[in-house]
Amino acid sequence: MGKVLVFGHTSPDTDAIVSAIAFAELKNKLGETVEPVRLGALNGETEYVLKHFNTDAPRLVKTVSNEVPAVYLVDHNEPQQSADDIDKVDVLSVVDHHRISGFETKAPLYYRAEPVGCTATILNKLYKENGVVVPKTIAGLMLSAIISDTLLFKSPTCTDEDVKAAKELEEISGVDTQTYGLAMLKAGTNIGDKSAEELIRLDMKPFEMGKYNVEIGQVNVVDFDDALSRQAELETAINKEIDAKNLDLFVLAVTNILTSDSKALILGKAAAAAEKAFHIELKNNTAVLKGVVSRKKQIVPVLTEELAK
Amino acid sequence: MGKVLVFGHTSPDTDAIVSAIAFAELKNKLGETVEPVRLGALNGETEYVLKHFNTDAPRLVKTVSNEVPAVYLVDHNEPQQSADDIDKVDVLSVVDHHRISGFETKAPLYYRAEPVGCTATILNKLYKENGVVVPKTIAGLMLSAIISDTLLFKSPTCTDEDVKAAKELEEISGVDTQTYGLAMLKAGTNIGDKSAEELIRLDMKPFEMGKYNVEIGQVNVVDFDDALSRQAELETAINKEIDAKNLDLFVLAVTNILTSDSKALILGKAAAAAEKAFHIELKNNTAVLKGVVSRKKQIVPVLTEELAK
Repeated sequence: MGKVLVFGHTSPDTDAIVSAIAFAELKNKLGETVEPVRLGALNGETEYVLKHFNTDAPRLVKTVSNEVPAVYLVDHNEPQQSADDIDKVDVLSVVDHHRISGFETKAPLYYRAEPVGCTATILNKLYKENGVVVPKTIAGLMLSAIISDTLLFKSPTCTDEDVKAAKELEEISGVDTQTYGLAMLKAGTNIGDKSAEELIRLDMKPFEMGKYNVEIGQVNVVDFDDALSRQAELETAINKEIDAKNLDLFVLAVTNILTSDSKALILGKAAAAAEKAFHIELKNNTAVLKGVVSRKKQIVPVLTEELAK
Repeated sequence: MGKVLVFGHTSPDTDAIVSAIAFAELKNKLGETVEPVRLGALNGETEYVLKHFNTDAPRLVKTVSNEVPAVYLVDHNEPQQSADDIDKVDVLSVVDHHRISGFETKAPLYYRAEPVGCTATILNKLYKENGVVVPKTIAGLMLSAIISDTLLFKSPTCTDEDVKAAKELEEISGVDTQTYGLAMLKAGTNIGDKSAEELIRLDMKPFEMGKYNVEIGQVNVVDFDDALSRQAELETAINKEIDAKNLDLFVLAVTNILTSDSKALILGKAAAAAEKAFHIELKNNTAVLKGVVSRKKQIVPVLTEELAK
């Protein structure tokens, strides 16, 4: 088998980047030739993580079929969250912790999904199952991914398995999880230098829900105003995105990592359905989503159920 | 959590039945309440297996949402191979060794697929990962599933992992794999008492390939004539099936377990595409598929590729 590429979803977050690096490392240790790549710009948090652990960012690509016939996916499976030409390559394996949707293969494959908070938690198991010790730097990166995805274990997506994996990785990496974790999450909330376009795309994922095209972005802050003081500018960027992609709904969740609440900015012709789904009333296109920090567990299923009606 | 049902695909084979039993046993040992059920009649081979190990057949059901809100799937994922009302329940986990197609969830789940010859091979790993010893009877059943799916290790779907799992299960169960295996496979070729309708449905699976509706049945024999001496009768049954379900293609693979070749009986308006896919010329609607014994590895991908053109 020739070289295989591995990558996480578009608009990559820390888990998407780190899991590609950690998966490639495991496969390379097992004798394969695997290169981690990325499908988008790094966010501030991930830049902080890679710098802290003195690790190069994976190479940026838009397409993959021009390089390889087959790929590995981490941290995603839905084609619209993947490489532009994902339909032109064979997917040999998937390691993921999301719902399965729109994913099709011609042949059997290795697919490992678990309903845990972070892909890195599953990768930690795969290292053990394959008898490979996680290298110190990789352990620090994987711990960062767990901190990122679980918001330092406070997200409802966080499971006992994530906590257990984080403890093991803390031990290997020698990182002080609480101190490092908070610094890392705060680095991700430093959004003053981003344009409105960059902000809405920072951690944005497209979804098909029923017959609706939906995009959901998420921005972590330590104060809602960090982002929402620029609401007019954000709305212009979102409406441009809606027009360009013919979206029915755009939800931007501004998540306060200190209070574990979100404020949603919601635009698009299906906005009323979103109000119904969350039992909220939008005022000036926004509403607080009390206790909501997880797109995957608290936003996507609720919206999917309402829009499928 | 209340009771959960677990089941394999419609027209169940030995792996579909046994994996449901073995998965339920594992989950019950871990403290859940899981009942194995089945979606169709037992074939002769599976009857032989259950009798040999003095095990009751799982209860027959057509629908599941009238009993439970959530289910586990083994040995399949495609909705058209599942319970009639699979869209009305939540799928909590899947353990499978087939391609993924048409499978959608609203929320994250446990999904374990591996490109091995048999679901029981993956279940053997799950027992170990959960620190549960496979009970002696269950080991005999799981070994039978591996023998069935790999045709006693001769199918191209058979991997080193299947052979390894079979050895472990042979040790626990005390079964002589070769002697028992051949007797078991031969019990499955005893088709003289089946009607033509029963024969084509014995191990039949529906597939969507591109815009085509396809069904592929498989019958194991020790001589092609065991089945094909009744070709006229089989064609009548197949044409009835094509009309009733508006199929584009029906392939009945008659597989000689001694020579490891198949003879295909192919009907339907897409028959010419099947000729192209397999580089064959049908004579009297049949052609030998040299060295073909695996629907999953040697029939489905080849047809899917041609019909997607």
